[in-house]
Amino acid sequence: MKIYRYHHPFHLECGATLPEIEIGFTTYGKLSPECDNVIWVCHALTANSDPKEWWPGLLGEGKLYDPDKHFIVCANMLGSCYGSTNPDTVNPMTGKRYGKDFPLITVRDIVKGLILLRIHLGIEHIHLATGGSMGGQQVLEWAVMEPAVIRHLVVIGTNAKHSPWGIAFNEAQRMALEADMTLYEESADAGMKGLEAARAVAMLSYRNYEAYHLTQMEEEEKIDDFKASSYQRYQGLKLRKRFRPLAYKVLSKAMDTHDLGRDRGGYAQALSTIQSRSLIFALNLIFYFQFGSKRRLPGMFPTLYWKSSTLHLVTMVF
Amino acid sequence: MKIYRYHHPFHLECGATLPEIEIGFTTYGKLSPECDNVIWVCHALTANSDPKEWWPGLLGEGKLYDPDKHFIVCANMLGSCYGSTNPDTVNPMTGKRYGKDFPLITVRDIVKGLILLRIHLGIEHIHLATGGSMGGQQVLEWAVMEPAVIRHLVVIGTNAKHSPWGIAFNEAQRMALEADMTLYEESADAGMKGLEAARAVAMLSYRNYEAYHLTQMEEEEKIDDFKASSYQRYQGLKLRKRFRPLAYKVLSKAMDTHDLGRDRGGYAQALSTIQSRSLIFALNLIFYFQFGSKRRLPGMFPTLYWKSSTLHLVTMVF
Repeated sequence: MKIYRYHHPFHLECGATLPEIEIGFTTYGKLSPECDNVIWVCHALTANSDPKEWWPGLLGEGKLYDPDKHFIVCANMLGSCYGSTNPDTVNPMTGKRYGKDFPLITVRDIVKGLILLRIHLGIEHIHLATGGSMGGQQVLEWAVMEPAVIRHLVVIGTNAKHSPWGIAFNEAQRMALEADMTLYEESADAGMKGLEAARAVAMLSYRNYEAYHLTQMEEEEKIDDFKASSYQRYQGLKLRKRFRPLAYKVLSKAMDTHDLGRDRGGYAQALSTIQSRSLIFALNLIFYFQFGSKRRLPGMFPTLYWKSSTLHLVTMVF
Repeated sequence: MKIYRYHHPFHLECGATLPEIEIGFTTYGKLSPECDNVIWVCHALTANSDPKEWWPGLLGEGKLYDPDKHFIVCANMLGSCYGSTNPDTVNPMTGKRYGKDFPLITVRDIVKGLILLRIHLGIEHIHLATGGSMGGQQVLEWAVMEPAVIRHLVVIGTNAKHSPWGIAFNEAQRMALEADMTLYEESADAGMKGLEAARAVAMLSYRNYEAYHLTQMEEEEKIDDFKASSYQRYQGLKLRKRFRPLAYKVLSKAMDTHDLGRDRGGYAQALSTIQSRSLIFALNLIFYFQFGSKRRLPGMFPTLYWKSSTLHLVTMVF
């Protein structure tokens, strides 16, 4: 991972200003002289700037997006704790970490940072921008902000405007974060119980009734220590080992702000300004998770499914 | 509300014993000499023993269940904080509140308490047992435990066995409760931030995408303070004023244990032993909530909908 340092005030949509920003990013391959081989990957809520880690089925040597052919770029979101400026960063104006004072950022602010990085890297055109969930939100926002730059886009399980339902899900998570009164403290463990709980809530939106039914059904009769309970706790512990509570809160607030149509006459109007050739994947009951198994749900063709955080494009006929 | 005191050891399914139990209960009307007019209402997770408060459309003078004709009984669940023995009760063996030491209780334990109360009240037959959600779980469990007692049953939005999905939802709520490190303290405010967060999570299971879409959509463009967020917080604050965190945790654990088929050869086998005439209402996308409005979703006939916690039986053709 490299760090791009922008040592100028960065004005945010909320009216606040960050005195400077840093953006962690990863690249694979080389930019072609014609600048026609850029694959820009935008990551989802808790991922990092290295898509080879979390999208190995799609990116890498011999894969669809191949460093031998493509210049692959992925940047950590502003506000995230994988190399970019976030609430745990020291504020150069005060010499202390931002903590509770970190300002509200929007998906537009995040994309504004990506555009600075794009210019810094000398990229004039992006052949393909892609991402799922909050990554897709960034891709769509970017395609509206710079319609002449993004040639193609592929988004998965995302939206043009975050729904009241999505905001309610995020708010419940933030309430869990805030129920942990250590949230704004300085220690390494601060806010971690809240983060675990928030993640357990989020899992309920990443899976559904059928997914839990398939993977967490009990084989024996019991009245306590259910598999579904330990699964929730396990997912919380897993995230705790690799994420930070305040960054999680800031990014969940940013997700809520996603609305392509804000100040643009509504999202239908905004979508109509996109010039990129677009491929949109919606997920409908096929979003499921299973360790180590190749069992598939009967589904569409082609079907997307997640396996250990890896998105596979399954192009078989069922 | 009256209190039924059972001053004997009460053995629980988990193997633990409560030295005694109390059950808060409310009755309306009089038991007929033939004992053929009992309407027993079982309440859901956070309700109390007075169904006139939370089911006024169904019970009361001139309503379907009328104290002039029926002997209406409702008991607060064992473990709940509306008059029954719960974690805030003083343990007579120690002179201190149970707190963290309150044992695991099951829906069967709760129904075992209801049966003691039934016998205490001299009720031999129940004309109709009814309840929604966790209330329905008690009704079904009771109809299996005492098939000759329950003549009719009407259950709404309930199940024969709690699903892995339902357990996962409850576990996320318990993780939010536990993220609040004051949960087991003695003060009046202890655990209340956790309770608020848990309630916000639960709301996501009581409503759905469409319900939030109908009621919490923004009219103006904004990047913060969304209606869906304040709705979640409002629901948390509302429950905080009328419930207790440890009782909430104990009842959510009890809900997870619900399995008619445990030690009975599976729930299909258990269901087949029910002798009551049964009316089952399932809820499917018609479960919605709206303040002060009579707006209806296109739906089934008859359709059930919730308005300010009141269940109405709407028998119009849409």
